[in-house]
Amino acid sequence: MEANNRRASFDEIKHNRLETGCAGVAPGGNDDGREPWRTLRSLVRVLEAASCKKARAGAWRSPEASVIPNLHLPMRSLEVKNRWPLLVLLLPAMSLAFAYRSRTSVDDIKGLRLITAIKTPYLPDGRFDLEAYDSLIHMQIVNGAEGVVVGGTTGEGHLMSWDEHIMLIGHTVNCFGARIKVIGNTGSNSTREAIHATEQGFAIGMHGALHINPYYGKTSVQGMVSHFETVLSMGPTIIYNVPSRTGQDIPPVVVNRVSWNPNMAGVKECVGNDRVREYVEGGVTIWSGNDDQCHDARWDCGAVGVISVTSNLVPGLMHELMFEGKNPALNSKVMPLIEWLFGEPNPIGLNTALAQLGVIRPIFRLPYVPLPVEKRVEFTRIVEAIGREHFVGDRDVKVLEDDEFVLIGRY
Amino acid sequence: MEANNRRASFDEIKHNRLETGCAGVAPGGNDDGREPWRTLRSLVRVLEAASCKKARAGAWRSPEASVIPNLHLPMRSLEVKNRWPLLVLLLPAMSLAFAYRSRTSVDDIKGLRLITAIKTPYLPDGRFDLEAYDSLIHMQIVNGAEGVVVGGTTGEGHLMSWDEHIMLIGHTVNCFGARIKVIGNTGSNSTREAIHATEQGFAIGMHGALHINPYYGKTSVQGMVSHFETVLSMGPTIIYNVPSRTGQDIPPVVVNRVSWNPNMAGVKECVGNDRVREYVEGGVTIWSGNDDQCHDARWDCGAVGVISVTSNLVPGLMHELMFEGKNPALNSKVMPLIEWLFGEPNPIGLNTALAQLGVIRPIFRLPYVPLPVEKRVEFTRIVEAIGREHFVGDRDVKVLEDDEFVLIGRY
Amino acid sequence: MEANNRRASFDEIKHNRLETGCAGVAPGGNDDGREPWRTLRSLVRVLEAASCKKARAGAWRSPEASVIPNLHLPMRSLEVKNRWPLLVLLLPAMSLAFAYRSRTSVDDIKGLRLITAIKTPYLPDGRFDLEAYDSLIHMQIVNGAEGVVVGGTTGEGHLMSWDEHIMLIGHTVNCFGARIKVIGNTGSNSTREAIHATEQGFAIGMHGALHINPYYGKTSVQGMVSHFETVLSMGPTIIYNVPSRTGQDIPPVVVNRVSWNPNMAGVKECVGNDRVREYVEGGVTIWSGNDDQCHDARWDCGAVGVISVTSNLVPGLMHELMFEGKNPALNSKVMPLIEWLFGEPNPIGLNTALAQLGVIRPIFRLPYVPLPVEKRVEFTRIVEAIGREHFVGDRDVKVLEDDEFVLIGRY
Amino acid sequence: MEANNRRASFDEIKHNRLETGCAGVAPGGNDDGREPWRTLRSLVRVLEAASCKKARAGAWRSPEASVIPNLHLPMRSLEVKNRWPLLVLLLPAMSLAFAYRSRTSVDDIKGLRLITAIKTPYLPDGRFDLEAYDSLIHMQIVNGAEGVVVGGTTGEGHLMSWDEHIMLIGHTVNCFGARIKVIGNTGSNSTREAIHATEQGFAIGMHGALHINPYYGKTSVQGMVSHFETVLSMGPTIIYNVPSRTGQDIPPVVVNRVSWNPNMAGVKECVGNDRVREYVEGGVTIWSGNDDQCHDARWDCGAVGVISVTSNLVPGLMHELMFEGKNPALNSKVMPLIEWLFGEPNPIGLNTALAQLGVIRPIFRLPYVPLPVEKRVEFTRIVEAIGREHFVGDRDVKVLEDDEFVLIGRY
Repeated sequence: MEANNRRASFDEIKHNRLETGCAGVAPGGNDDGREPWRTLRSLVRVLEAASCKKARAGAWRSPEASVIPNLHLPMRSLEVKNRWPLLVLLLPAMSLAFAYRSRTSVDDIKGLRLITAIKTPYLPDGRFDLEAYDSLIHMQIVNGAEGVVVGGTTGEGHLMSWDEHIMLIGHTVNCFGARIKVIGNTGSNSTREAIHATEQGFAIGMHGALHINPYYGKTSVQGMVSHFETVLSMGPTIIYNVPSRTGQDIPPVVVNRVSWNPNMAGVKECVGNDRVREYVEGGVTIWSGNDDQCHDARWDCGAVGVISVTSNLVPGLMHELMFEGKNPALNSKVMPLIEWLFGEPNPIGLNTALAQLGVIRPIFRLPYVPLPVEKRVEFTRIVEAIGREHFVGDRDVKVLEDDEFVLIGRY
Repeated sequence: MEANNRRASFDEIKHNRLETGCAGVAPGGNDDGREPWRTLRSLVRVLEAASCKKARAGAWRSPEASVIPNLHLPMRSLEVKNRWPLLVLLLPAMSLAFAYRSRTSVDDIKGLRLITAIKTPYLPDGRFDLEAYDSLIHMQIVNGAEGVVVGGTTGEGHLMSWDEHIMLIGHTVNCFGARIKVIGNTGSNSTREAIHATEQGFAIGMHGALHINPYYGKTSVQGMVSHFETVLSMGPTIIYNVPSRTGQDIPPVVVNRVSWNPNMAGVKECVGNDRVREYVEGGVTIWSGNDDQCHDARWDCGAVGVISVTSNLVPGLMHELMFEGKNPALNSKVMPLIEWLFGEPNPIGLNTALAQLGVIRPIFRLPYVPLPVEKRVEFTRIVEAIGREHFVGDRDVKVLEDDEFVLIGRY
Repeated sequence: MEANNRRASFDEIKHNRLETGCAGVAPGGNDDGREPWRTLRSLVRVLEAASCKKARAGAWRSPEASVIPNLHLPMRSLEVKNRWPLLVLLLPAMSLAFAYRSRTSVDDIKGLRLITAIKTPYLPDGRFDLEAYDSLIHMQIVNGAEGVVVGGTTGEGHLMSWDEHIMLIGHTVNCFGARIKVIGNTGSNSTREAIHATEQGFAIGMHGALHINPYYGKTSVQGMVSHFETVLSMGPTIIYNVPSRTGQDIPPVVVNRVSWNPNMAGVKECVGNDRVREYVEGGVTIWSGNDDQCHDARWDCGAVGVISVTSNLVPGLMHELMFEGKNPALNSKVMPLIEWLFGEPNPIGLNTALAQLGVIRPIFRLPYVPLPVEKRVEFTRIVEAIGREHFVGDRDVKVLEDDEFVLIGRY
Repeated sequence: MEANNRRASFDEIKHNRLETGCAGVAPGGNDDGREPWRTLRSLVRVLEAASCKKARAGAWRSPEASVIPNLHLPMRSLEVKNRWPLLVLLLPAMSLAFAYRSRTSVDDIKGLRLITAIKTPYLPDGRFDLEAYDSLIHMQIVNGAEGVVVGGTTGEGHLMSWDEHIMLIGHTVNCFGARIKVIGNTGSNSTREAIHATEQGFAIGMHGALHINPYYGKTSVQGMVSHFETVLSMGPTIIYNVPSRTGQDIPPVVVNRVSWNPNMAGVKECVGNDRVREYVEGGVTIWSGNDDQCHDARWDCGAVGVISVTSNLVPGLMHELMFEGKNPALNSKVMPLIEWLFGEPNPIGLNTALAQLGVIRPIFRLPYVPLPVEKRVEFTRIVEAIGREHFVGDRDVKVLEDDEFVLIGRY
């Protein structure tokens, strides 16, 4: 009987894993809602299982070898966000339109065509300038962006402390979550940090997570798979591949190995449109991560849309590019802007441009510094050529003097 | 002309301070919305002012002597939370009832009669059990609580990291902010931490802040005033006085000196009903912080209501006590429960009771440990006497064995 | 055989616990140095043991019920600090005098008569002023102090982030550890924080830890015992009792219950000399925590010495009081200084005095503010009466103007 | 006179900058040691200067445009570490050999030939295994390594929290600082984090800092210069160039622009030996960052030595390669080991190898996972070929089973 019990509990683990896709779910009594405190005993059974020969017989799958595999239950909430019981009762027809849905589904994420990697503006001491930020988000909503990535590389998430980062996600959800999808860049090259931030981000209401592979530290293919699998259980996820930053390509084999996970929404791919086409043919949802290629990615290669930097500046034009059909003329029109933007590593150009447009304070967190004055003069000409009315804000575009910029190391 | 400029900019500071009640607001150009980047020049003028004799002539007011008094602009958002443009247009009559208002006003806070200092439940590894938490909040809403204090001493905010704490506030706002007021306990004995947490809490949507005086470290009367003034500018605030925990009473002189601030909502007072009466006569809004005195505080001394621990267990009865008029019989009926609850420092009794009621896992973050078995048996009798139906949850109350409890030091 | 195994491993746990006094030590193979990686299997056995009836038979002892009791091995180093192999070989006689010993023993701590709760000085932006700090420590060493408490309430540890705090301990060890004992105040009202900080403090070389009971949050007697036991395993420990700050007395029963631990060095006791006498008679080493009572505590009640605030100012006189025999005249001479110092909550007086003596910048982290000018004038008279030469520093004592003080909230 | 004052104070800034190489040093009275509290007034003068036309006339130099350029004094200590006054007096001849010198000079760093990027071993819950760590360092010292990089990419600094990281540096300094140079990898892609960590690292006694360019986020050439300049003022610094991880080469122009700084020790260069030769000809001290090229770099291209991964395994052989003259035979002998080590991103191979050698527990922090069993078998053959006696540890090398490895995501 003892032995039977053991096998039973081992089966539970396995079953659990298959059904939920979540290595962190504890098996047994604690999930049925009746006896949540039986965890300690369950753990014993789990570990007994883990130690029995049967358990070891299968192929080695690394992430499942963690110390106490099922100690960490998911920190999840099933709460229907901001539900309005009365409204729902009285106005059932409206409820669909107005009430938040319980959880943003992966399909909701998969349908977004224009997602802006939103800029984070700063106050003179380096904290977030939330008034300017709110204004930036407003302009995105008004001009048709359907999602924002908060604290991406464009939003300088790597220059934030995690508490700042999570706070900004929460702020965005709280103020704008009903009108735009909030994708938190809760990825990290440290699996621990990615777990912690993603858990917090979903707890605080973000609709999806953006996950980078472990940049700088890098890892093996198996390590990448393990990394993504630890966070995929938490909610809708976009995987982000940008080897020019990370020093390491995410090969399709990694994407394919995690694609079985129901939370896998798709890939933000920067490697080029051949890769885009390859993924699309395999059924993977793709956002172009290169503004200069996004028109072709969308209309020629089957990408669903773009996660864009340029849309911080000309959201309406980027919306047109993604929604209104093939338009090589428009694409050519914005190309000089895109080339100007990426002359130096992003978001140097974007930060400079938004300051010149008068929609943010000209404050930089180091190691970013503004573009030199020649480039700033060039930007004013680009604005003129495209038309000031297509850019965010309503002030005249300025060159700004060098000493109007403030660069901050301690904040 | 130089001298005139200096005086002018000093007047700006002064004027600014009077109008906004916010020592952190930078003077001059950056507030008119047109030229936000003039801050550096303004700072120069401010510091010139600070260095001139005139500026020193007045009485010494300590918090204004900080290094660069106006470097730190407020990190504020004026965003209308989750606005529903269509709904507002089509259904103006409904909009008042259903749409969020831009900002919770101090008056909204001042009218709350039953605020529950909500318990934070844990998973086996010590992280938050958000499913159980959501369920606890639901039961509060259903039973008439109008507000919750998140991460108070009852919610064990002092055992949280700040990022956990802010995340829990954000989670509560996101899931329940439309139905219950969320008061974040963003106070600290470190002014820096109180500033940081309060700023983050309001950014993430909390409706009010609870602020304790600097416990343990303590400070002078002038220090208390300075401490409260640095955070009062950020949003609606309740000051919390509990000398049995802090080692130091907040004397009325402190409350009176900060009461001019438009964000000052009132005081959670634990010193006793004489103090309550004194404040009420002076026009200060008071919540009783002692469940055993709250009935009398409310009906005899003019307190607006209670910030309650007991309402975690019997929210309906506490609602009745605060809303349905004087009721000494009911008050006597719940008194044995209150006495049982506070036999050891709160939330030891509460944690034990909620576990016995089956609504949370029996998991304690150290240094809290469960009440001994005799006390647990006693609780089951109290539940029987008052009636199981008045308590949260629907399982049978259990004694629980010692080894069903899990105590955690590392989490 | 199965059952035998279980009992065996349970005996291991028990044995382990008794021998090491450390609930965190894993049993079995991993301690013998040969097979460190057998931990996972050991864990299984531990948990089997934890689940068997035998294990539950004894009295309930809460901290042992933690989720995975033996998951957390001690993070210890047995390294001989800065050993000088050559020196030791060549000059064995000198080695005792000059070389660091492997570990400061509890007896080393027990013999310290004058320990100064050292002030932390600040730069204008609120970071530590290490040059001034080093100078303060130097003056302590030169004048005979044998130990310092780093980041105590006097040193404003509660206004530090933990990383600042640990860094300051490490800095002190690195620069002065050969000449003065470094007691890190790694206590906290959060057991988790106390564990983390104490582990880091000992890893970084501190000679002893000071541990407060859980202030503000408070807990039961059993909770206090559990709290202290989780940290006592890490190294020599002084327990600190100051109910006027914590809101809760540590009753002798708690001290007695943890006194079996070989790392228990003694108690810093502020309750008064009757308590001191009681402890001393019971064999507990006591430091007076009240400067005004320390002379009598030392010479009449058997205290080993004092953990002093006043010695920041007059280290030589405090040394004389603790080392040179009964001296009521000297005691009376310094009493006006002590009374002046504690007129407002410490370290307000100390901070003001050190600034007036010109040994620190007049910079305060809020919520501390300087004493008013009348008190500052009074201090100059006290210095005159006692003699400037007995005070630290060599500048004239100044009154300082109000606007020479800088108060900082964000740092 | 006003104008003169302004120019004067601006000259002070300039002068200060030239002399100290430290943008953070406040000018004027606060550095002469007599009136440290005059900072506020100095700041006013600085800002007046900053606002005057003259100040703006020169070329724009970004890092000097920070909000309050001289608010942040250096957090420095001039303390002679662990000075032994008696020893120095009595044994002046010995003092040079045995006593710590006040500060490790840049020249001390420049002379190191073998620096090991030391592995960080873990306990089963993911915390540091300090006993194993101490043992690893010991083996380095005994086998002739002259320095260690603590928390480099090899030591998985990117998987540490900063407080862990600084603690490990402090621990290493405290236990081994007299026998080996401790280079803390306090670099970051966030300038703020690099400043904070470097300041703490030097405060806690590290002898030098390793600084990477802003990986992943990347920046412009001017941004790189600004980044390095903010940290170079703090102490001896090695700049680290590894484009395959960072996604961005540090071009020689950046190194040349910061080489005037007296704290600049040299470059750890991974781009190849042509670059090494170019730098050496220009007078820049170079360590090879590629173990497979280090022999040639040292003996053919003028590199001073190597910062090595392989020396974790065979410190004696790497010492021989760097110290005992050209030795292509030995170089060829270790080449199969080096190739094996870097088959997957470092430190995957190293972690696996050290576990197989029995000197660390087989515990991995994700996203690292062990090499597969075929590779582990291959390693045992390499050990056999080179000779077990050249490798660290004294146990038999093992293959280890898959389930003996423990992979951890939450720690």
